[in-house]
Amino acid sequence: MTAIFPRGKAKKFSPVYANWYSLNGNGEMTGTTWVTESGFLETPIMITNTNSVGEVRQAVLKWFVDTDWYSGENWWYTYPVVAETYDGFLNDIYGFHVKEKHVLEAIENSSSGKIAEGNVGGGTGMMCLGFKGGTGTSSRVIKIKEATYTVGAIVQSNFGAKRNLSIAGVPVGIELKDTLNSKFNAPPKSRRQEGDGSIIVIVATDAPLLPHQLKRIAQRIPLGIGIVGGRGSNGSGDIFLAFSTANENAFNRDETSTVKSMSNDQITPIFEATVQAVEEAIINAMVAAETMEGINGNTAYALPHDLLIKTLKKYNRIKK
Amino acid sequence: MTAIFPRGKAKKFSPVYANWYSLNGNGEMTGTTWVTESGFLETPIMITNTNSVGEVRQAVLKWFVDTDWYSGENWWYTYPVVAETYDGFLNDIYGFHVKEKHVLEAIENSSSGKIAEGNVGGGTGMMCLGFKGGTGTSSRVIKIKEATYTVGAIVQSNFGAKRNLSIAGVPVGIELKDTLNSKFNAPPKSRRQEGDGSIIVIVATDAPLLPHQLKRIAQRIPLGIGIVGGRGSNGSGDIFLAFSTANENAFNRDETSTVKSMSNDQITPIFEATVQAVEEAIINAMVAAETMEGINGNTAYALPHDLLIKTLKKYNRIKK
Amino acid sequence: MTAIFPRGKAKKFSPVYANWYSLNGNGEMTGTTWVTESGFLETPIMITNTNSVGEVRQAVLKWFVDTDWYSGENWWYTYPVVAETYDGFLNDIYGFHVKEKHVLEAIENSSSGKIAEGNVGGGTGMMCLGFKGGTGTSSRVIKIKEATYTVGAIVQSNFGAKRNLSIAGVPVGIELKDTLNSKFNAPPKSRRQEGDGSIIVIVATDAPLLPHQLKRIAQRIPLGIGIVGGRGSNGSGDIFLAFSTANENAFNRDETSTVKSMSNDQITPIFEATVQAVEEAIINAMVAAETMEGINGNTAYALPHDLLIKTLKKYNRIKK
Amino acid sequence: MTAIFPRGKAKKFSPVYANWYSLNGNGEMTGTTWVTESGFLETPIMITNTNSVGEVRQAVLKWFVDTDWYSGENWWYTYPVVAETYDGFLNDIYGFHVKEKHVLEAIENSSSGKIAEGNVGGGTGMMCLGFKGGTGTSSRVIKIKEATYTVGAIVQSNFGAKRNLSIAGVPVGIELKDTLNSKFNAPPKSRRQEGDGSIIVIVATDAPLLPHQLKRIAQRIPLGIGIVGGRGSNGSGDIFLAFSTANENAFNRDETSTVKSMSNDQITPIFEATVQAVEEAIINAMVAAETMEGINGNTAYALPHDLLIKTLKKYNRIKK
Repeated sequence: MTAIFPRGKAKKFSPVYANWYSLNGNGEMTGTTWVTESGFLETPIMITNTNSVGEVRQAVLKWFVDTDWYSGENWWYTYPVVAETYDGFLNDIYGFHVKEKHVLEAIENSSSGKIAEGNVGGGTGMMCLGFKGGTGTSSRVIKIKEATYTVGAIVQSNFGAKRNLSIAGVPVGIELKDTLNSKFNAPPKSRRQEGDGSIIVIVATDAPLLPHQLKRIAQRIPLGIGIVGGRGSNGSGDIFLAFSTANENAFNRDETSTVKSMSNDQITPIFEATVQAVEEAIINAMVAAETMEGINGNTAYALPHDLLIKTLKKYNRIKK
Repeated sequence: MTAIFPRGKAKKFSPVYANWYSLNGNGEMTGTTWVTESGFLETPIMITNTNSVGEVRQAVLKWFVDTDWYSGENWWYTYPVVAETYDGFLNDIYGFHVKEKHVLEAIENSSSGKIAEGNVGGGTGMMCLGFKGGTGTSSRVIKIKEATYTVGAIVQSNFGAKRNLSIAGVPVGIELKDTLNSKFNAPPKSRRQEGDGSIIVIVATDAPLLPHQLKRIAQRIPLGIGIVGGRGSNGSGDIFLAFSTANENAFNRDETSTVKSMSNDQITPIFEATVQAVEEAIINAMVAAETMEGINGNTAYALPHDLLIKTLKKYNRIKK
Repeated sequence: MTAIFPRGKAKKFSPVYANWYSLNGNGEMTGTTWVTESGFLETPIMITNTNSVGEVRQAVLKWFVDTDWYSGENWWYTYPVVAETYDGFLNDIYGFHVKEKHVLEAIENSSSGKIAEGNVGGGTGMMCLGFKGGTGTSSRVIKIKEATYTVGAIVQSNFGAKRNLSIAGVPVGIELKDTLNSKFNAPPKSRRQEGDGSIIVIVATDAPLLPHQLKRIAQRIPLGIGIVGGRGSNGSGDIFLAFSTANENAFNRDETSTVKSMSNDQITPIFEATVQAVEEAIINAMVAAETMEGINGNTAYALPHDLLIKTLKKYNRIKK
Repeated sequence: MTAIFPRGKAKKFSPVYANWYSLNGNGEMTGTTWVTESGFLETPIMITNTNSVGEVRQAVLKWFVDTDWYSGENWWYTYPVVAETYDGFLNDIYGFHVKEKHVLEAIENSSSGKIAEGNVGGGTGMMCLGFKGGTGTSSRVIKIKEATYTVGAIVQSNFGAKRNLSIAGVPVGIELKDTLNSKFNAPPKSRRQEGDGSIIVIVATDAPLLPHQLKRIAQRIPLGIGIVGGRGSNGSGDIFLAFSTANENAFNRDETSTVKSMSNDQITPIFEATVQAVEEAIINAMVAAETMEGINGNTAYALPHDLLIKTLKKYNRIKK
């Protein structure tokens, strides 16, 4: 499980402007109607597997109540944002092993700083574009006039068909079609096929974007996914949320807020940064992930670094 | 808790065309991204209280797996639709009393036929427009050329300010402003105020409507709520889902379906029936609900029938 | 034709935050994709008849270019907002009589101050809920803590079936069912039927609402229409736009803006004011409109004031 | 100007199921609210330049009335779909040269069969990713079980920054950064910059897709645009419409229709075909387009075929 605190865990109630978009809705992200309506994300974001959404949502809510995050004055934490992707090829997903204590551990262990990638957190059992997938991150720093902004993406990446895998424009999936494909000794207890899957993307920025501008960010996320080889396939839950940590005082109950809003005319570099960060985060998840044997001896093979480099050289994308 | 099986419980996997709309999103209905994307509702609909969504979602999923509803061929039940309204004025909502067994009971006890109204199921702890709210239903039968169609609504009704209550066009809320108002000995463990709340509406029809036409139905539901006195207030989660039981064979995995679609030019009576059924279902919930004393001695008073009749007479809406 | 300049005609380029919603889309409002995307309304709003949208859009664009509103620095006026309703029962709509000069006249004659109602501007040939319709307006002043805000609505009202006409909750349409109904000597050159039609609603406020909050306003407009008797019928183009004149400096090309945003927790009174203003504006349009004989001797009869008063008395809504 | 008749010009009134999506809304496509609401496209699609939308919309409407396409029974043609992109760098767009007669010519000259590409029709004055753009098309034939379906795309391609141009994954824009860049002797009468622009994409298929499924198609179009180098930049109107020519009898006024709907589980190949066709259509537009000198000696240079081939060889995408 992955826990994301938009302003860090130490900062208790502190909503951020947010919005969301879905390229393909075969998935779940709870809490989105209130994000749309209010323009705010008021809870941490939890990313887990498909069958644990309810357990995690309940545990997060109880954690709010049990800690000093919550007070009688607050009903903010009512609609936790919990998203998921399917790990049933490697994980005994119908065993319902994720419990409240794992949620509390994930929250306990969350910290600022470098984010681990690959087979970690909610990304542990992921598969992506024919290889082992997982959690990935990437960011871009942009200078717009005097201001410097950061755009960061975190993905739980679990989608796509090997034949479509493209890295730096190189048809890596086709070139590596004869590498070991994922091995399935026993099918998962569902009809899902190899190539099915999903991707959850969270984009965070400190650029001062209003909710309708964050919708624009969320709508550009598919561009990065498409470049790597995603097609929003029917079996995929491609759900995206973008938030801005600017405007720390945007949320008020009893008074009008004063907030900053970036000019639309200056926003295109943020779009470009978003697309690049999403593209790279997906690749990073695959590069960091390691071969994993899961339930029933099912195995997902890591993207072989040596062959990847060889292929990139073949297409002249890195020096020979 | 309320459990709704679109084609009856005996009929196992049998998705219905569906779509949804939200007037105000301060609430939760899980499973909606897949409804939007696929055009199908693939699970029963559960309606519970705000803090039990996760518990109920998890229990429903386990029930699928534990019963013969589920088979290795199916991953249909992955995204249960679970909606909620807030009952924290009367119920110890932060005690998290709803458990898996209550979900199984609700499923076990669900049956076809007349639907109980008032303080039942998910509607038990509701308050509405200054009086006791609850579960309500209503339906209309429409003849369009040779065809006869039914439009039914079920509401979990928990919204609105007393001053706006209007029945048959009569300003009942203002007329009854001096009746006993809900009594709060102790505030709920949240900042929510009297008048806050939500309404979940499910509209079912046997008219052969495609998903984009069901969106049109869902978008007319606010008209019925407005007539009774709802204003989509900020603290309200007004989330609506409409489904059609026609086209029993619409869902196929491996072949193209042949389905019926009602002419758009004939759809207006379905809109009118929707508005009427929603309006009446809300009134029915209030008329059926009885005074309830809940947590901390908090009390919600039932709409007094005698005064209601007297008021309707005063405004000449029923014969004196 | 009706011309609306959000900040008055004297104020040249001065975009306002805006958003829109459609209850039923059988109509046209040009320019909406950019309103959605940018959050701004950058042009005046023109409301005309169904067959003149193209002519009016072109004329407005030329007017921008021909006047000092336009400069080489600007391409703001590229997507004029032009909306319409159908007046083919009374007007020779297929004669295409609206020309560029009428657009220029409408712009020339537009001014601040009291807005004429009834058979004026784009509302001239309208019919509504069985009687003569037209242009109507209404507003509400709200005090929220120290601040005072105004919410105003203007409607071009041309929708609905007589049987649904409800005024102050009284079933006026049914009570007056035997008054003269609109007379059609010759059908219009289209298949449209009595009861078809549309309503364009523009809501303006000085409350500091961001674009996503203005969407919320636009989504409450149907509540006011429903109370009067609208059902979003299939033949209706019910398209709504809401804008805020606050935040005069919200629009910038080259720098970040500082803007005010009302608290969501304080917004409900704005919702209520919107519903009330829309309801009243529709009634006002009907009360102000006068009987009109149009093309082919087709006649739309005004709502008879004496019978309306008598009916309101019968239902005890005004003193006898 | 480009005129598209979904079932061919000979076939008069014959609506097709359709839906639309916009990646970036800095553009115009009229008629979309009724497409969303009804699920049908009822008119031809016209694609022109930014300042001619009104003129073209009016001319199309008059053409309906003046020809035997129109009858007293019909009001179908009320909301023409007219889209645009901006050609002000090469064309005297503020001269408003497109007139009714050009619309009639475009309709007159429209025919079935191979579609001309490059500097033709509405695509004449386009610029794209640093080179001359224009009109482009592409299609894919897919076999799904026994059925064979075609997916075709037509683009009016006028977007993007040279540095992002990617062909077959090769960074062509960066490699060709020193070729002649578009020459602007005089800026256009607007503030738009090189790199601004738009793309209109129409996807047609004979696969039996319902309106909500066609929305899914429209939402995949950005994936193809992203692969070539589009980022949905702020100055871009990226508006897409998808329609299905299957279900010829879907549209009825007075009776329920029987229609086919493809299984969602089989739809992914249609998504892939859409992405491929859009990607190729954009490249085709550029490859077919020729260097053009326009207003004020402004010049857009065609993508140099020899250098393109050389670059593709350098990156090993075609044999040396």
